Amino acid sequence: MHKKIILIVAAAAISGAAFAQQTLKPEDAIKTRQAGYRYLSWSMGKIKANVDGKFDKAQVIQAANTIAAIANSGMGALYVPGSDKAVNGVQTAVKPEFFTKPQEVGQHAQAFNKEANELAKVAATGDAAAVKAQFGKVGGTCKGCHDDFKFKN
Amino acid sequence: MHKKIILIVAAAAISGAAFAQQTLKPEDAIKTRQAGYRYLSWSMGKIKANVDGKFDKAQVIQAANTIAAIANSGMGALYVPGSDKAVNGVQTAVKPEFFTKPQEVGQHAQAFNKEANELAKVAATGDAAAVKAQFGKVGGTCKGCHDDFKFKN
Repeated sequence: MHKKIILIVAAAAISGAAFAQQTLKPEDAIKTRQAGYRYLSWSMGKIKANVDGKFDKAQVIQAANTIAAIANSGMGALYVPGSDKAVNGVQTAVKPEFFTKPQEVGQHAQAFNKEANELAKVAATGDAAAVKAQFGKVGGTCKGCHDDFKFKN
Repeated sequence: MHKKIILIVAAAAISGAAFAQQTLKPEDAIKTRQAGYRYLSWSMGKIKANVDGKFDKAQVIQAANTIAAIANSGMGALYVPGSDKAVNGVQTAVKPEFFTKPQEVGQHAQAFNKEANELAKVAATGDAAAVKAQFGKVGGTCKGCHDDFKFKN
């Protein structure tokens, strides 16, 4: 696929325009995307514990598949209108620019998805050094988006 | 694999004994398992919207893959000691029996994983009627465990 088309598709997915969706209230959309990130973070932590300590191939595969699935889960649809700031007592760390720069967001999303899918492939080989390297690349895509679009806690 | 062995493996996975794990505080384990269920619920809601309304094969595959990945993610490890009741202000709806009946919990976990994995396979076919039927089976396994081990809100 042409690179420009990929970017447009990624931006559309992130903006939630790609699919029909059940309607979520902004506060529920915030809670659900935060749930996705928390679950993602848990699985990232599992892989970190494995590459830093005893490497359990089965656990790494399990965690990498979870990360890839969440990356591919269409999280962009959770950035609904009205979820750009705290609503009904539910806080969000997203910067307002996230909602006005779909192309930049799409680039981050595309990078994350690519590296997460690659991590699932690398995990399946059981090569601990390769997992460690690819895990670093996934973490880099997280940081890239956080630097641009997430307020520091 | 012999049925008894599957049950033991499922029970061990649910009890968190199957894998070495990074250490989670009980309150963080509760938050993380609740995050997993919330994200799961979102994906279940997507499939429901598709089988009740316009059927978008791509979205159903995406949601079914997310459900299967979370089912296979080793959630059992999130039921750490001390997470059987509210801790440091974090509530939980789990019944105490969950922690004393690993075999029954394992049976629920095994049923959920089996039906969730089957849902991912059925979703890939794009057969809306088959997805609807299999989605009902997955929901039945959720309800089965909730009836036994989750306090009603």
